[in-house]
Amino acid sequence: MRDSLVKAAFQLFLDRGFEQTTIDDIVALAGVGRRSFFRYFPSKEDVVFPDHEGCLVEMTEYLRDAPADGDPVQQVCEAARLVLRMYAADPLFSVQRYRLTREVPGLRAHELSVVWRYELALAEHLRERGAGRADGALRADVVAAAVVAAHNHALRTWLRADGEGDVQAAMNEALGYVARAFSDTAEPRDASADAGGAASVSGGGVRGENPDEEVVVLLARKGTPLWRVVRDVEDALGGS
Amino acid sequence: MRDSLVKAAFQLFLDRGFEQTTIDDIVALAGVGRRSFFRYFPSKEDVVFPDHEGCLVEMTEYLRDAPADGDPVQQVCEAARLVLRMYAADPLFSVQRYRLTREVPGLRAHELSVVWRYELALAEHLRERGAGRADGALRADVVAAAVVAAHNHALRTWLRADGEGDVQAAMNEALGYVARAFSDTAEPRDASADAGGAASVSGGGVRGENPDEEVVVLLARKGTPLWRVVRDVEDALGGS
Repeated sequence: MRDSLVKAAFQLFLDRGFEQTTIDDIVALAGVGRRSFFRYFPSKEDVVFPDHEGCLVEMTEYLRDAPADGDPVQQVCEAARLVLRMYAADPLFSVQRYRLTREVPGLRAHELSVVWRYELALAEHLRERGAGRADGALRADVVAAAVVAAHNHALRTWLRADGEGDVQAAMNEALGYVARAFSDTAEPRDASADAGGAASVSGGGVRGENPDEEVVVLLARKGTPLWRVVRDVEDALGGS
Repeated sequence: MRDSLVKAAFQLFLDRGFEQTTIDDIVALAGVGRRSFFRYFPSKEDVVFPDHEGCLVEMTEYLRDAPADGDPVQQVCEAARLVLRMYAADPLFSVQRYRLTREVPGLRAHELSVVWRYELALAEHLRERGAGRADGALRADVVAAAVVAAHNHALRTWLRADGEGDVQAAMNEALGYVARAFSDTAEPRDASADAGGAASVSGGGVRGENPDEEVVVLLARKGTPLWRVVRDVEDALGGS
């Protein structure tokens, strides 16, 4: 019944517009009673995003069960992919909804609320798992926002292109960009690559007779975020 | 008249609640006609955020006039400070509004729309000024989201503490965190110490077959001032 309500609603939204469609129209087309609608959806806006509540639950459970010794940034990137999976499961529906959401300001506002709840879930996970860091709460908010923005960038680009193109590859690139900027451990990469951080510092690699002349050797991939290089250099230089 | 409408509205919102206050109540208390209300505010929600439209205009103008050779990331950080300035100009009002917004879901949704428009303005600037980069559009979205999240983190922490504490210092820390992660140019540094480089960086010292894997090799004496290492690393990493 839930599915037939969604189907009926979208048919009407596309035919005559979201504002011009009433809940009575929807239940009439679906052949069910008005009360049935409200059993599944609190409002007309919610029927446009029928799977987000379920996805949010799935995301929360995924993060709750994520290994304690894993990289929290990688974990929230993986959690964001659950949202993409939901969109990619039905490209036509996703593209139609995207167009509808562009046209109706109320739906855009509703979507922002949904996205905000995903962002809160990611930030909470980062806060919990990064509890030991002095800047943990700030970092959690910034990284969650960056992950959501990267996810939405790849998703929207794909939706704007009518669901054509390799959205998985675009998502890998987008989330990889954030992971490189913020991840505690290495970004996803070939198994052949090394297991260390993106910047590798060898403190005291060359040592002169005078300890003050001790030399630090640093190797960093181009594109490594500056803050990470700085952190590693700082550790190696010893609080200069 | 605009100010007296805002003042009357807030008095009623705080006394009897946002939902329980009608526009008729507001205009009656302010001693003006209903049409005057709608001359200034499209809806009851908008009277809660009376300065955001003006701030958005100010932000857009600030970014439009920003020097073409400046660092776009620093520029959007400065633009975000315009929002803080608006909040800090009237701490009591800002704290009251913050509490109201927490309590009324409709206001929270309205606020998300406002924040989204700031984020779009920042992203557009970053896209325009970083047009040459292959990942320019992705980067623009991610950096704009990170700047907004950092700004809101500092702002909300201050509002939750009833406007007590040094919000400027917290904002500097929050925006500095994002700037370090994404900025193209160096942090402010000590001009007097700008002589020869104690750190020696060899950009592209080791080059893999994939340009993404290009590696930077740095040699630095222990005890080298961190700022100098950072400057040299930054030059070599080239826009991480």
